[in-house]
Amino acid sequence: MKSDIEIAQEAQMVHIREVAAKLDIPEDDLELYGKYKAKLSDELIRRVSDRKDGKLILVTAINPTPAGEGKTTTSVGLGEAFGRLGKRAVIALREPSLGPCFGIKGGAAGGGYAQVVPMEDLNLHFTGDFHAITSANNLLAALLDNHIQQGNELGIDPRQIVWKRCMDMNDRVLRNIVVGLGSKMDGMVREDHFVITVASEIMAILCLADDMHDLKRRLGRIIVAYTFDGKPVTADDLKATGAMAALLKDALKPNLIQTLEHTPAIVHGGPFANIAHGCNSVRATKTALKLADYVITEAGFGADLGAEKFFDIKCRKAGLAPDAVVLVATVRALKYNGGVAKADLGTENLDALKKGIVNLEKHIENLQKFGVPVVVTLNSFVTDTKAETDYVEQFCRERGCEFALSEVWEKGGEGGIELANKVLLTLEQKESHFKPLYPDDMSLEDKIATVAREIYGADGVTYSAAAKKELKRITDMGMSSFPVCMAKTQYSLSDDQTKLGRPNGFTINVREVYVSAGAGFVVAVTGSIMTMPGLSKNPAAYGIDVNDDGVITGLF
Amino acid sequence: MKSDIEIAQEAQMVHIREVAAKLDIPEDDLELYGKYKAKLSDELIRRVSDRKDGKLILVTAINPTPAGEGKTTTSVGLGEAFGRLGKRAVIALREPSLGPCFGIKGGAAGGGYAQVVPMEDLNLHFTGDFHAITSANNLLAALLDNHIQQGNELGIDPRQIVWKRCMDMNDRVLRNIVVGLGSKMDGMVREDHFVITVASEIMAILCLADDMHDLKRRLGRIIVAYTFDGKPVTADDLKATGAMAALLKDALKPNLIQTLEHTPAIVHGGPFANIAHGCNSVRATKTALKLADYVITEAGFGADLGAEKFFDIKCRKAGLAPDAVVLVATVRALKYNGGVAKADLGTENLDALKKGIVNLEKHIENLQKFGVPVVVTLNSFVTDTKAETDYVEQFCRERGCEFALSEVWEKGGEGGIELANKVLLTLEQKESHFKPLYPDDMSLEDKIATVAREIYGADGVTYSAAAKKELKRITDMGMSSFPVCMAKTQYSLSDDQTKLGRPNGFTINVREVYVSAGAGFVVAVTGSIMTMPGLSKNPAAYGIDVNDDGVITGLF
Repeated sequence: MKSDIEIAQEAQMVHIREVAAKLDIPEDDLELYGKYKAKLSDELIRRVSDRKDGKLILVTAINPTPAGEGKTTTSVGLGEAFGRLGKRAVIALREPSLGPCFGIKGGAAGGGYAQVVPMEDLNLHFTGDFHAITSANNLLAALLDNHIQQGNELGIDPRQIVWKRCMDMNDRVLRNIVVGLGSKMDGMVREDHFVITVASEIMAILCLADDMHDLKRRLGRIIVAYTFDGKPVTADDLKATGAMAALLKDALKPNLIQTLEHTPAIVHGGPFANIAHGCNSVRATKTALKLADYVITEAGFGADLGAEKFFDIKCRKAGLAPDAVVLVATVRALKYNGGVAKADLGTENLDALKKGIVNLEKHIENLQKFGVPVVVTLNSFVTDTKAETDYVEQFCRERGCEFALSEVWEKGGEGGIELANKVLLTLEQKESHFKPLYPDDMSLEDKIATVAREIYGADGVTYSAAAKKELKRITDMGMSSFPVCMAKTQYSLSDDQTKLGRPNGFTINVREVYVSAGAGFVVAVTGSIMTMPGLSKNPAAYGIDVNDDGVITGLF
Repeated sequence: MKSDIEIAQEAQMVHIREVAAKLDIPEDDLELYGKYKAKLSDELIRRVSDRKDGKLILVTAINPTPAGEGKTTTSVGLGEAFGRLGKRAVIALREPSLGPCFGIKGGAAGGGYAQVVPMEDLNLHFTGDFHAITSANNLLAALLDNHIQQGNELGIDPRQIVWKRCMDMNDRVLRNIVVGLGSKMDGMVREDHFVITVASEIMAILCLADDMHDLKRRLGRIIVAYTFDGKPVTADDLKATGAMAALLKDALKPNLIQTLEHTPAIVHGGPFANIAHGCNSVRATKTALKLADYVITEAGFGADLGAEKFFDIKCRKAGLAPDAVVLVATVRALKYNGGVAKADLGTENLDALKKGIVNLEKHIENLQKFGVPVVVTLNSFVTDTKAETDYVEQFCRERGCEFALSEVWEKGGEGGIELANKVLLTLEQKESHFKPLYPDDMSLEDKIATVAREIYGADGVTYSAAAKKELKRITDMGMSSFPVCMAKTQYSLSDDQTKLGRPNGFTINVREVYVSAGAGFVVAVTGSIMTMPGLSKNPAAYGIDVNDDGVITGLF
């Protein structure tokens, strides 16, 4: 069996101008990055802004398991299938993070015959967007420490600095550091932290900004610290906004690449799905809707985190109204939710399937609460039996969802035609009545309680004393109209990653709360959330190489 | 008077494919980065490798003063002047560092009407080369700390880690840090340091590597630490080489841009000129020599550091033989060397000029020791008087050098025609007999002593105990055949930056010695050398902005 990178490298890509031509984008609106990548010009985005929107389709999934679900693979395959059906479709995806490519997680370009290419470029530096975010993030940090060094006119309390440095690398020793050691000229000593670039608030901001004007407004509002008398200090206060925006000028432009079948894919932005909203950029999605009749996008992790944030943060803030949701599951993952060990997932087990399907059930119910029609798809594995897939199909039909098997990993677009037809049928027959889960003017506590009760199925929410206090401060600062961004384990509907299926009789414990004032949401942290990953004993980096002709191997 | 960025933004650039066409480079050999930047393909470099070399002209300068010399400006203007004379010329420059653009130093794109463009791109992210170097550098650091965390099989002594993390930012609080705080899963606690990206050994390696094969060989030899029993630990030992090389795959390709007059400029690499050799990449220079009849390149700082390293490190290692040197001075800088305060440099002062010209004299003598013909040029200022410039001209003629006034800042290529003609005359009439200053098989101490005596005019060299010990270790490791790379203040021929003119009766004190085994040189550090700059009280970042249409202001 060929690896993803082998399939990707065998691909006969077409010049990106040909991909753009499918969407009637003239070459002059492309800023080329080699032959197979391009940024879309600001002029194009402005020019198409009055057009009618296409249909917006969100791809999400059940809670992830070690068995693998294939959300990106399904998104890519579905887009290719639309292409095969002669439809004008665009896939709008997140950019993968560089750091994890050297750890254990693979890249995020889809898989098998449903990939976006060039895969190596996408997983390494791509068009430099994440490097620009790293630079802007760290310029703000340098200006902050320099302000303190040069006299601290604003009265910044070094114990209340909330802005962290960032690096696009899995580097655990940078989680907790002390900076400013040495002599007087080497700065003030203080505790500091690095997060991985995708966890930077600037990533979330870039993904929520409408345009350069909005980007600057959001950057300027970032709270970096509090003063000795408790007042917020912003990026504007540090006179950092203009320089940061200059660094992000090109990163704000969406990137166009192609699938293995030359379907256009706009790949732009990639914030964390726990401490941020986990979706590609608003600018990319909105532009895609102007360029195509069908836009397939995805959200991070399972539907409890990714889809909820897509609806309650991205769609609410950007005024987007999704037309359908594709919910991805696998027979293997449902059996894993039913208690089967990973090694035994290849054996038919209807009892375990029936036990584990409650996870899918809860996600269907949740998505229906947002008023958007749901199509369920099973990402096929060779070990799935007809009895198993028939059972899942029947289960979905009973809940008012269309159902389709998907074989896009093995067959590309051809393997997604059944799914594409079911999506088209749904778009035709079922009207979407999208509404966010809660109103803006609800209190932050009630918003958190609503998500916990309605989406997670929790009995209630408890708070640490610090979290309570911070909620009050944020409310007092006049920011209670922000949506909440839940940071929770992706592996369970609850905040305990060992609770699979559809847990009940639990409460959600909010340990920490903080505001991302530039992004415009309040983060509620449950459990421990990792914002700087580490490397394993045998990191993927050991196996990565490039030969004398520049061909990369070992990236996955 | 217009600012550099205003002049640059008013420029009518031509598509980079037209610039490439001047060198008969077909579009298929360009990897475009937008319309005005491109990387040159590996195929092109291979294809032209058998061609005859053009003439290689190095632009260097007297010791820099606050009065400004304009070395890059002269290089660009000279290239443009060759263009106006109908000659096939290429300018081969270093890429500027991002961090200092937010501090006090401006970018490095030349000035006035002798600039390379697009100026903003070049000074910000350009084609991402430096970001790739940052990533590779920090991947190596992460793999090193991860090796220790995962059991430290190699027996790395945490007190003898010599590899530092890097960031392309002026950020003084990162000079001395403690990493690995927190719990067991957050790594081993140790002291660490960040340097600015251009100070990373990987930058020097990229600039000295012939091709991907040579790059990997050099990366693998990097010494990152020593074991508890004193043995060197390399990047190969950490299994980091392949992944680092993969990150550098595109960064290894030279970048093509244009001057304001559309002269081709290959801009690639930019290592420090103190702890590294301060020249653009060997690959860029060699490729330029195959593509053009005249290649104008530059080296960092004054000739005592930049030109010496260009000859003794870059040319020696790459087998290059320069044909002529252009030595840049200004009347103002020579008067400053003669003891005139900065505020009074606009007044004619022949006495001070006669006193300060000894700095120029010493650099002429030094350059002649390498057997390369010298052309001296005065970068004109409106305050220069005819008596002053006549004096300098006479002084140069008496020492066997051609002389020309240059007005490229104000007039572009037109202002460099006199200089170009003198260079052409020199190339025609004077044969270069280039030889490095010392042989490979001289001991490291003797190499340092030779540079100190012959180039700086020192009476001798003293060593700290630690430096002595390290010289012995490097010799014992079998690396004494490497050239030496002197890290010294750029402001004086001595290691005391207050000694202007042509100091004598001094010794050079070598405080620290270390080997850059991947780059292939031994660094001898005199005085204190800053490898991570800081920001000033009013950093340039405060004035940088970008408007809603993406136009950047305040960058200089």
